[in-house]
Amino acid sequence: MGFELTIFEGLSAFPVTPADCEGVVDCDHFGRLIDHLSRDGIASIGVLGSTGGYMYLTTDERSRAIAIAVEAAGTTPVLAGIGALRTNDVIANARNAKMAGAQGLLLAPVSYLPLTNADVDSLVQDVADATDLPICFYNNPGTTKFNLSEDHLVRLANAGTISAVKNPPAPEGDFTGQINRLRAAVPSDFCLGYSGDASISEALAAGADAWYSVLAGTLPNIAVELWNARADTTKLSAMNARLAPLWRLFDAHGSIRVIHEIVDMVGLGDVKLPPPLLPLNTAVRSDIENALSAMEIKKSMAA
Amino acid sequence: MGFELTIFEGLSAFPVTPADCEGVVDCDHFGRLIDHLSRDGIASIGVLGSTGGYMYLTTDERSRAIAIAVEAAGTTPVLAGIGALRTNDVIANARNAKMAGAQGLLLAPVSYLPLTNADVDSLVQDVADATDLPICFYNNPGTTKFNLSEDHLVRLANAGTISAVKNPPAPEGDFTGQINRLRAAVPSDFCLGYSGDASISEALAAGADAWYSVLAGTLPNIAVELWNARADTTKLSAMNARLAPLWRLFDAHGSIRVIHEIVDMVGLGDVKLPPPLLPLNTAVRSDIENALSAMEIKKSMAA
Repeated sequence: MGFELTIFEGLSAFPVTPADCEGVVDCDHFGRLIDHLSRDGIASIGVLGSTGGYMYLTTDERSRAIAIAVEAAGTTPVLAGIGALRTNDVIANARNAKMAGAQGLLLAPVSYLPLTNADVDSLVQDVADATDLPICFYNNPGTTKFNLSEDHLVRLANAGTISAVKNPPAPEGDFTGQINRLRAAVPSDFCLGYSGDASISEALAAGADAWYSVLAGTLPNIAVELWNARADTTKLSAMNARLAPLWRLFDAHGSIRVIHEIVDMVGLGDVKLPPPLLPLNTAVRSDIENALSAMEIKKSMAA
Repeated sequence: MGFELTIFEGLSAFPVTPADCEGVVDCDHFGRLIDHLSRDGIASIGVLGSTGGYMYLTTDERSRAIAIAVEAAGTTPVLAGIGALRTNDVIANARNAKMAGAQGLLLAPVSYLPLTNADVDSLVQDVADATDLPICFYNNPGTTKFNLSEDHLVRLANAGTISAVKNPPAPEGDFTGQINRLRAAVPSDFCLGYSGDASISEALAAGADAWYSVLAGTLPNIAVELWNARADTTKLSAMNARLAPLWRLFDAHGSIRVIHEIVDMVGLGDVKLPPPLLPLNTAVRSDIENALSAMEIKKSMAA
């Protein structure tokens, strides 16, 4: 890494996007959630990620959401998810994101028909040609069905079309191996970031440049504490152990579904997933409440 | 099955949808493709299936496409794909399809965030409540990430919310086992259909009620010939052997990508997949041309 922080470095907070059942964003509510995230330790706010339900919002609603976020974020830079099924829509999202004031783009290779490597190359090239904002490749096989190989990532990084990657947990938990292999092969200012809060302490211990965090999007203080402990093995491990009940719920029910419940539980308001995605059932909600209590997370911690 | 054909019974032809790179449907071209399919042996035309790229078209373009198809299809009934990520959009598509004259709906549990069984139940129920057109559950795990179990299918069939299923090839090719298990558990007028042209002769030999066919959407005569041979093992087997070169290409590159090339090769015009989906490369195109020659499929066969 160079001496200056790149836009994709550090702890990035991924909030939910409040919207009604037709997909119209609640601007006031979203602005309050963003304002809540603009604080020391949060390097960027990643709006319209998977947690922010980008694929469930129209191009126009996405533009509106980014503009609200940029205003509410103040000096904290905003990254915006631009993925869509059609290249022309991705490009429109990229241009709108720039106009709305986003400083970086998150590009997931979203698909209905699974994409080939060549399809993804053409997508990345076409988007890079259409924008001067830096692009982070949003590698999320569980939602996109596309699994970016390390070789492919290296190729894209060296082509200069992408500046960063948001990777899922390393295969078999070998973050050190993956980071070492990639570092040796990508440009020195390329940013290696991870998502997957439940295993993030391992990624941080292995030297990841960024944490794309669901937790930080709702409970920023706790995420900042974990991020700041990254160089101190004992502290990192203690923080991780404290959060274990939450990680177990993320693993069992998906972080996105769990965090939507937590937003409400910690007093940040009722934010529903778009139908047909159902809220978690009463038993799981009760497990989440117990986990929050065990971790001594209360309404006041979100405020 | 009852004595009357249900709308989902028989050979259903799934055409491609010609559209420009912004996703605007070419009405004249689409009308000609549909007109070409309206003939003896084709029980229905399935527009806006995976082959027809429904997920890459807006609600408005889909409505337009269905209206064109219904007009061009004459007396052949039109089935329409209505899948979308949001329930409200699926319901809008269902209502538009009815207004445009479709006689049956194809409902795929499309997802970005993978759906749970409960999500899918709520989707099916909400759509069934919003329309009086019969619904075929479009079971296509490769594109939707949702794998409908046999138990779940039986539950939906007996709830009366769906009238048919379009299944992918049976696990391990055991069509007879799957059809027997399902027949014993679903209402007698529930229609068990299959897609996956490459293994359809096995499904037909096992007594499937319907073939949702990519081949029939472009080369209807050949598909009708195969369908009509279904009760004659020797003939079915000979037809299937003749088509083997095509099935191999479908398996290797995906039927949707291959059929888009064939549409052009047999003189039905240039129809591109939506970017970022690339056309197949020159080597594969050449393999397809050779396969068509080997099968004695020429431009005149499509006409």
